[in-house]
Amino acid sequence: MEKMIRLAHGAGGVLSHELHKYIVERLGGQDASALADGAVLDLDEMGAGQGGRLVFTTDSFVIVPRKFPGGDIGKLAVCGTINDLAVMGARPVAISMALVIEEGLETEKLGEYLESAAMVAAECDVRIVTGDTKVVERGSADRLFINTSGIGITEGGNEIGPQMARPGQKILINGNLGDHSIAVVSAREGLSFAGQIESDCAPLFGLIGNVLEAAGGKVKVMRDPTRGGLASVLNEIAGSSRVNIRIDEAEIPVNDKVMGACGLLGYDVFHLANEGKCVFFIEDDDGAVENALQAMHAHPLGRDAAVIGEVEGIVDEGATPRVILKTIIGGRRIIDVLTGDLLPRIC
Amino acid sequence: MEKMIRLAHGAGGVLSHELHKYIVERLGGQDASALADGAVLDLDEMGAGQGGRLVFTTDSFVIVPRKFPGGDIGKLAVCGTINDLAVMGARPVAISMALVIEEGLETEKLGEYLESAAMVAAECDVRIVTGDTKVVERGSADRLFINTSGIGITEGGNEIGPQMARPGQKILINGNLGDHSIAVVSAREGLSFAGQIESDCAPLFGLIGNVLEAAGGKVKVMRDPTRGGLASVLNEIAGSSRVNIRIDEAEIPVNDKVMGACGLLGYDVFHLANEGKCVFFIEDDDGAVENALQAMHAHPLGRDAAVIGEVEGIVDEGATPRVILKTIIGGRRIIDVLTGDLLPRIC
Repeated sequence: MEKMIRLAHGAGGVLSHELHKYIVERLGGQDASALADGAVLDLDEMGAGQGGRLVFTTDSFVIVPRKFPGGDIGKLAVCGTINDLAVMGARPVAISMALVIEEGLETEKLGEYLESAAMVAAECDVRIVTGDTKVVERGSADRLFINTSGIGITEGGNEIGPQMARPGQKILINGNLGDHSIAVVSAREGLSFAGQIESDCAPLFGLIGNVLEAAGGKVKVMRDPTRGGLASVLNEIAGSSRVNIRIDEAEIPVNDKVMGACGLLGYDVFHLANEGKCVFFIEDDDGAVENALQAMHAHPLGRDAAVIGEVEGIVDEGATPRVILKTIIGGRRIIDVLTGDLLPRIC
Repeated sequence: MEKMIRLAHGAGGVLSHELHKYIVERLGGQDASALADGAVLDLDEMGAGQGGRLVFTTDSFVIVPRKFPGGDIGKLAVCGTINDLAVMGARPVAISMALVIEEGLETEKLGEYLESAAMVAAECDVRIVTGDTKVVERGSADRLFINTSGIGITEGGNEIGPQMARPGQKILINGNLGDHSIAVVSAREGLSFAGQIESDCAPLFGLIGNVLEAAGGKVKVMRDPTRGGLASVLNEIAGSSRVNIRIDEAEIPVNDKVMGACGLLGYDVFHLANEGKCVFFIEDDDGAVENALQAMHAHPLGRDAAVIGEVEGIVDEGATPRVILKTIIGGRRIIDVLTGDLLPRIC
């Protein structure tokens, strides 16, 4: 571990994993997966209630600019936590909201962000139940940071997680990659790519519920490719399940403007953050994949959904699990996690 | 509401209440009490388990300096959340930890804070189960902010809350007022008041459990006088229950050095923050008050516990509930909430 924390430690790539490992060790955890985005708590073990399981998540939002095409920091914070819960198969029920405000923030703007947050929460029937507010001196924070933690309820039953990928499963995504990162960087730098690109920032609880209903117990992995992008999520799943993964460039939905912006700015679309996307790994039995795809297409947040690849084989002991892109012209390249910093403050 | 957020909005006084009200309104809450430090969630209503109730809290820690006599930001964050849960009558079971780190923070220091956090959590048999880490550019945060949210379990039964104060109840505290604020300001300003004052930062779950066991259902209000101090907590309770409260200066435990520092620096000890204190309102029946006091005296965190006052009368409609100090020389003065800013960043 380096002597000082650098920006790249927060970019969702290799250094983020290192820092995460360091933190978990100091907190006394057994391994790095022990302190994931969300935890499942057994109500029985906790001595409360029977049978149910709680999911508990936390996420801080430090995005700059705080307002961007398609959303703002308030909407993002609530969507982010709803999505963290939903991809763990939980129904979100309660959210906390803790604000760190730099003195000088305009009250009216704060009000706007909070109203955005309240609107998404109401849409999803989730209550913001507890909060905290700290104010720090000018120069001690970047206007506003928001932490949202969430509690959700899961019935249990079907085990879903990054360790459940198996050969033959199809990989699906509910729409275009990269809209969020490009919308944010455009708003920050005042760039315009042949018209505005909107962030995909949205709560995925409804869409995920429909997919789970349509594909029954065949859904084995769900992840939201936020910071670190699709590359990070697929590599994590490949590593957890010790499988190779193949994705097909021709099938991956990307907005032309986003592709153009990537070309201009030198970004890899697979590293861009998304805030309204979910990746599903589904067993290809009993029409489950087709049913899931139809369920997504029928939902406003899944119109561009596609099957983008599949799990290839189990990896031999000692070998490294790989994520391989089959390019449009038929080549193959390894999709790796981000090694430097890309877009700071996109979440 | 003013046009811009000022430091005083975060000091725990009148302006903090205004900001809190503004936030709750924007979030769509009915009244300011709807978004308190902690929320009670009914597991039945949530469709999970039976009978039990969850308590859910959140708190951000922005203290400067991050290390002070008696603790550091890591210990403070975990203690703060354990105490928020405990004063709501809940057994803490799980904590989340979200870090916002400014680039340039020394990794080793981060490690120290995390180890402090882990040590307190282990002491109290609470698990840190989920986390998040964001890194922001130099100048965008003050080295390190920590948010901890907590989940606790409560059996229900005895209703405890700021609305439960009734005439005749005795008011108890488990020790000296103000140690935390003075320890922090001394560390920050390099002051020394005839020897070091240590923060009282400690997890109160054990002490509170012993008091609840000793005084049965007679404990009606519990609050930790953190930001805003004893003055803020007592005024809040007086307002919620619409009662007048009397405290006796001669009975209130304060360290001589803290008293001296208050004199020098112009602080009112009743506005100083504490991080290891709890105020109890207990019905004076069946020896409950005496039993509670003995239980505190037998606990390492309650050796200086004292009965410091009592609830006087119900307030007539239209009148303002008051907290009155009976001074050592027999006078009476009103103890009001803080109106400006006092000590920024003590939590």
